[in-house]
Amino acid sequence: MSQLVRRTALRALIVCGGGTCNMSVRSVSSVFVIKRPDEITKRMQIHDWCGGFGDFKIGSKHVQGNLSLKWRRMSSASTMEKKVENSTVKKDQNGGGSVAVPSYWGIETAKMKITRRDGSDWPWNSFMPWESSQADLSIDLKKHYVPKNIADKIAYRIVKLLRIPTDLFFQRRYGCRAMMLETVAAVPGMVGGMLLHLKSIRKFEHSGGWIKALLEEAENERMHLMTMMELVKPKWYERLLVILVQGVFFNSFLVCYVVSPRLAHRIVGYLEEEAIHSYTEFLKDIDDGKIENVAAPAIAIDYWRLPKDATLKDVVTVIRADEAHHRDVNHFASDIRNQGKELREAAAPIGYH
Amino acid sequence: MSQLVRRTALRALIVCGGGTCNMSVRSVSSVFVIKRPDEITKRMQIHDWCGGFGDFKIGSKHVQGNLSLKWRRMSSASTMEKKVENSTVKKDQNGGGSVAVPSYWGIETAKMKITRRDGSDWPWNSFMPWESSQADLSIDLKKHYVPKNIADKIAYRIVKLLRIPTDLFFQRRYGCRAMMLETVAAVPGMVGGMLLHLKSIRKFEHSGGWIKALLEEAENERMHLMTMMELVKPKWYERLLVILVQGVFFNSFLVCYVVSPRLAHRIVGYLEEEAIHSYTEFLKDIDDGKIENVAAPAIAIDYWRLPKDATLKDVVTVIRADEAHHRDVNHFASDIRNQGKELREAAAPIGYH
Repeated sequence: MSQLVRRTALRALIVCGGGTCNMSVRSVSSVFVIKRPDEITKRMQIHDWCGGFGDFKIGSKHVQGNLSLKWRRMSSASTMEKKVENSTVKKDQNGGGSVAVPSYWGIETAKMKITRRDGSDWPWNSFMPWESSQADLSIDLKKHYVPKNIADKIAYRIVKLLRIPTDLFFQRRYGCRAMMLETVAAVPGMVGGMLLHLKSIRKFEHSGGWIKALLEEAENERMHLMTMMELVKPKWYERLLVILVQGVFFNSFLVCYVVSPRLAHRIVGYLEEEAIHSYTEFLKDIDDGKIENVAAPAIAIDYWRLPKDATLKDVVTVIRADEAHHRDVNHFASDIRNQGKELREAAAPIGYH
Repeated sequence: MSQLVRRTALRALIVCGGGTCNMSVRSVSSVFVIKRPDEITKRMQIHDWCGGFGDFKIGSKHVQGNLSLKWRRMSSASTMEKKVENSTVKKDQNGGGSVAVPSYWGIETAKMKITRRDGSDWPWNSFMPWESSQADLSIDLKKHYVPKNIADKIAYRIVKLLRIPTDLFFQRRYGCRAMMLETVAAVPGMVGGMLLHLKSIRKFEHSGGWIKALLEEAENERMHLMTMMELVKPKWYERLLVILVQGVFFNSFLVCYVVSPRLAHRIVGYLEEEAIHSYTEFLKDIDDGKIENVAAPAIAIDYWRLPKDATLKDVVTVIRADEAHHRDVNHFASDIRNQGKELREAAAPIGYH
């Protein structure tokens, strides 16, 4: 919960921050410095902020500024006329070089400069400081859903069967195993979210928040992959395997979800139980010194608000906690379907990871 | 911009609000009253808040409470043991009756009670008060992208051709037209977002925020539909048409996006230009009294922070502004691809709608 408070206040600050002076935001593990944007078109007031652990205080210092209002302003006709056919070179926020972006459409990609405490640029555009969160490590990792009906038993068998080739291929190379399996783990949430979205607009009915909940799961799994790939570089044949596996798994899961969402969510629930097991083994090997406890990648420190001296062990621990949350959400979803109910009939656990 | 500040501060309040006393949040058009949750397991401090137009002030009153921490707490082993096999009946937040939800997985669907100023329940679970926003009505509605290359010309022709049967079928029944077309408009963002997500995890590369930007577009279009369907009830043959059209359009657009993202985004850009035209005609008919300017649906008032006495005209005006933003994003995306660049090479315009 607390990270949501911090994320929120950070957002309140960073979105409106900058302006006439620089300003620093202290949160549990990091401080972001927001600098003044080049163009200020409107002014709004916001109070300076100092974060803490479990609570926060908002002081009285006023600064003025604006973040992405630039988008809005540049979309206005007056600005557009000057911009027609013009082109500006913008730095890729993910470090991927620069790209010439026509600003005709008034979308300015160079948003307010956001830097970390150490003055380095905030390099991620897929998540902002105020969207990062701390994992809930208090979740029970040992929970197991005992198969009750035939669908549960089928799901359980499928997952156990899938584990055999996985164990044979990876054995105890848990770094590689985690990286490869996250390319699969990020698929079900996207498939489920997409199908519920299409159903909602096809049947003129509300979603109960489940579209968002499943897409959040997919994005969280994708961030696991973005983290693991910083630690383990895939070899050419592993890249090829990922392409083949995604092609087969995406289509199989899509068909499975269309035929039986109950079965699909149960399968994901069991897959997550296996993921928790794998990450626990991963941690054992780190503790036994079989896997070097290297420094955590920058993206992991920023995404989970880890301390600057965080290590691989910390990263694997928070990822395992995320998987435990996904296990709960999917078994929960399967339980709802098991009662012959639609997911939308029960409010979705949004932000539960 | 300002709505983002308000949304943020609302979130800061509502997420942590409630607790030992009720508390009211004033924003431009509405006041939310957050009541104390039944179970408080941890405490955190937050300051009371009073919103305004274009600026806000945060006072010094302290309240204590917690919103969805209940999820976290119930996921802990101690609670689980008592909960195994138990089931609790929860009210569907979207007014769809009640459903028995097994709480074994520790996911409590009855989150903190959030009500509007008038004391009525907040009925939406797919978006919360702090996620609602005000449309930017300053955007230029007349912008048109003049086709430059062969792909642009193909895209333009396809959209103009698609308009012929649409005009013939709907003529000037703009309410029905809008409702039906939003079932299609919510598809491209989801297809693009899904394909970029799969590409990101398949190729081990970052997204530059484009997955999020396109999924935001899809959700925004879905909210247009959730609004329009409150105003116009689809007939059985219209429902049938929607199913057929979705089946054809989803697959066609998917193939188009795989073959040429540049063409796909350009087509959406032109579709949005047509949507702006249709909504402008819609407004003309409302002004001319040909279409009754009925009261705005509750979901529209809550989603766009409209005044309580908002009318259909206000709703159509904000939806048209949203479409203009999507036009910009998609022409922008097509321009990037047109330079042989990947979308991820330019930071995505997140929250641009």
